Amino acid sequence: MTLRHFLEVDDLTPDELAEVLALAAAPEPPRVLAGRGAALLFEKDSARTRNSTEMAVVQLGGHPITIAAGEVKLDVRESVEDVARTLACYHAVICARVYEHEKLERMAAVSSVPVVNLLSDASHPLQALADLLTVRGEFGGFDGRTVAYVGDSNNVARSLALAAGSVGMAVAVASPDGYRFGAADEARLRARCAELLLTDDPAAAVAGADVVYTDTWISMGQEDEADERRRDFAGYTVDDALLDKAAPGAVLLHCLPAHRGEEVAAEALDGPRSRIWPQAENRMHSARGLLAWLVGAAGGGHP
Amino acid sequence: MTLRHFLEVDDLTPDELAEVLALAAAPEPPRVLAGRGAALLFEKDSARTRNSTEMAVVQLGGHPITIAAGEVKLDVRESVEDVARTLACYHAVICARVYEHEKLERMAAVSSVPVVNLLSDASHPLQALADLLTVRGEFGGFDGRTVAYVGDSNNVARSLALAAGSVGMAVAVASPDGYRFGAADEARLRARCAELLLTDDPAAAVAGADVVYTDTWISMGQEDEADERRRDFAGYTVDDALLDKAAPGAVLLHCLPAHRGEEVAAEALDGPRSRIWPQAENRMHSARGLLAWLVGAAGGGHP
Amino acid sequence: MTLRHFLEVDDLTPDELAEVLALAAAPEPPRVLAGRGAALLFEKDSARTRNSTEMAVVQLGGHPITIAAGEVKLDVRESVEDVARTLACYHAVICARVYEHEKLERMAAVSSVPVVNLLSDASHPLQALADLLTVRGEFGGFDGRTVAYVGDSNNVARSLALAAGSVGMAVAVASPDGYRFGAADEARLRARCAELLLTDDPAAAVAGADVVYTDTWISMGQEDEADERRRDFAGYTVDDALLDKAAPGAVLLHCLPAHRGEEVAAEALDGPRSRIWPQAENRMHSARGLLAWLVGAAGGGHP
Repeated sequence: MTLRHFLEVDDLTPDELAEVLALAAAPEPPRVLAGRGAALLFEKDSARTRNSTEMAVVQLGGHPITIAAGEVKLDVRESVEDVARTLACYHAVICARVYEHEKLERMAAVSSVPVVNLLSDASHPLQALADLLTVRGEFGGFDGRTVAYVGDSNNVARSLALAAGSVGMAVAVASPDGYRFGAADEARLRARCAELLLTDDPAAAVAGADVVYTDTWISMGQEDEADERRRDFAGYTVDDALLDKAAPGAVLLHCLPAHRGEEVAAEALDGPRSRIWPQAENRMHSARGLLAWLVGAAGGGHP
Repeated sequence: MTLRHFLEVDDLTPDELAEVLALAAAPEPPRVLAGRGAALLFEKDSARTRNSTEMAVVQLGGHPITIAAGEVKLDVRESVEDVARTLACYHAVICARVYEHEKLERMAAVSSVPVVNLLSDASHPLQALADLLTVRGEFGGFDGRTVAYVGDSNNVARSLALAAGSVGMAVAVASPDGYRFGAADEARLRARCAELLLTDDPAAAVAGADVVYTDTWISMGQEDEADERRRDFAGYTVDDALLDKAAPGAVLLHCLPAHRGEEVAAEALDGPRSRIWPQAENRMHSARGLLAWLVGAAGGGHP
Repeated sequence: MTLRHFLEVDDLTPDELAEVLALAAAPEPPRVLAGRGAALLFEKDSARTRNSTEMAVVQLGGHPITIAAGEVKLDVRESVEDVARTLACYHAVICARVYEHEKLERMAAVSSVPVVNLLSDASHPLQALADLLTVRGEFGGFDGRTVAYVGDSNNVARSLALAAGSVGMAVAVASPDGYRFGAADEARLRARCAELLLTDDPAAAVAGADVVYTDTWISMGQEDEADERRRDFAGYTVDDALLDKAAPGAVLLHCLPAHRGEEVAAEALDGPRSRIWPQAENRMHSARGLLAWLVGAAGGGHP
């Protein structure tokens, strides 16, 4: 038994991802967390992530404990490592939303239980699993489908591309200069994505896509750059005109919270192509599948 | 099946209220929330409401998630409507304590699950249900009983009067000028209260009453008016002398927290006529009854 | 049935402590909290205490509600007594971490359910129970064993000495002048400790000890005195050289969080004699044993 963590989508093989997606849809969730705790540590505020992950833990029989950053004061009151070692004393899994991805890696390096990324500056892998569930729910599968992401090549975009590539979808990402993936990220994406288009042209990315995806231009911690970012992303708003360039039957996804009139037009977000609420609900199902797999794997349930 | 909400007592018919009160006393709570979540969102601090509602959810088999306003930043990070739509993805019911009642109405307008008022500037209906349970526990029923409220004609007073009137009690409310019900509220009360006395004379209200009730003169958000309010409410303190004007066997209720020496004398609040602790405990039973009814109704348990 | 509280170790007789330790190791925790709540009120931040106590409650079948001090504003929004009376309406037990021990005594004076000390300026009795479990786990029992505490004669030291003395261990405490136990504490310790050495010489305390224990020099609320305290505790750092003076097979304990390079050297804390992580895990088992005993006693489970 090797201890497994989930800090980014490609920590799992495509076959393992398929197992997770299958578990997410299992009608009777396995009670792998019965009598056990799950630590949910948040350096950043959360609505979807906290509520979906807590309910996933509950549905697996466990007790979630949501911990605000101020309670443990990472690296101030106690080191990240000692906090992780402490939480591992009481919990079957440690889930954390952090600013710096490196904190997750430091936790994983010392934790005796699996560590799960609930969002970092580098990646948002549980969101990407929910996105896959939503695509599968909409189209029945992934074969021959294309996802187009329009906006900042950020943590959400990276995990989405890795996830979509892992299940065989074609991926297109349109970002303005200065907001495109760096060389290391691009190499990492190409290892999972057989078809990957990186462009600065939203129309080129969306052309023929089955799924159009966007995210905020201004993530938490970037408020100082808000005006500059709004200028830089001019022309990247996902609206009905852009969606019209997608394939017939295309759907719109967004990880929320959304800023209507900025990265997405209200007409699109609240229109007939939007699947944002099923997508939000899928956060719970994907977290349940991932935790079931991870704790099952760590606890002997998987070979 | 119509989706039902509980923003004020008269959202339910008198017959439906009787069903809720019966459910609140059921020895075996129905497990209508098994495997399901209940969101408890608080814009205002809470002791009784949070603890009683969480335990009610637990006793129905559910998992409560208490959410501080700062976590979701209503209308700042995300609109009230999007927060409600999000919480409805994971929870069987959304309960919220807000400053502005209108926020509850906005939630109810878009939520796919029931919305429950945990206190707003307009009403406090779960408190009123607990008050009814306490009266019934004390007197065995409501027939021929009178409740007298002395103090600010506020949210607590409005819900109390609606509840008492709905079960056939006579209602008397004594408030100084400037703190009396407006015309719209009075009309709403008269629709439920066959006997309603609105006065500025505490002694007249309390004369012959079976239940005497008061609440703080200074609610949260009114701290700036504290001195003015203390002057305006001079003479409205509920003390033993005032309670002596009530019916033999009369009891004193207060929704707490209490300010001894202001709206209520310590001799009264901590004296033999006080029923404030059974009343506080009844917050849990009334919440359980209401949630059982509401989720049962929403989930097909009621016609 | 007398209502029992647990504010300090010697609230229980040595025989009762033995029952608690036995319950802590019971393979099937009794479901004494099924359908019931446990209030966990925190005036001070917590990592181990919150997580271990919540999980202990869960393993006994109960629902823990962790309450931040700001939510109830002790003695500001509502008196300590009214908060305790309120929480007792919904919970089978009230656990609290407070600055002033006297607040726990005020709660216990009015509460209708057991009150448990989760840490006060006077004592840390649940930590001491975890320490006993760790010693027993390491040595198989307590007979003939000695514990040496080096550092501030604080709340942790007092509860540790009372606990160790209660099970027949010899106790040695080394603290600099100004940080030694007062006369009242010393008398209280001597009532439980057959062998008690109070000294200002760390080497004398540690000589031949089976367990060496230390704690921070600067507890929460003492940050202003940090520099002075660091000067006063010079020479009290527990390092390998000091541990070498202990008995063969001696172990190092620390209640955490630790400050490597201050009260303990990293070489010692992270070295082969350290048992700090089993000790941290034992916080959960000791809390479970204590709560099972206390609620069982209060609920009729004990004579």
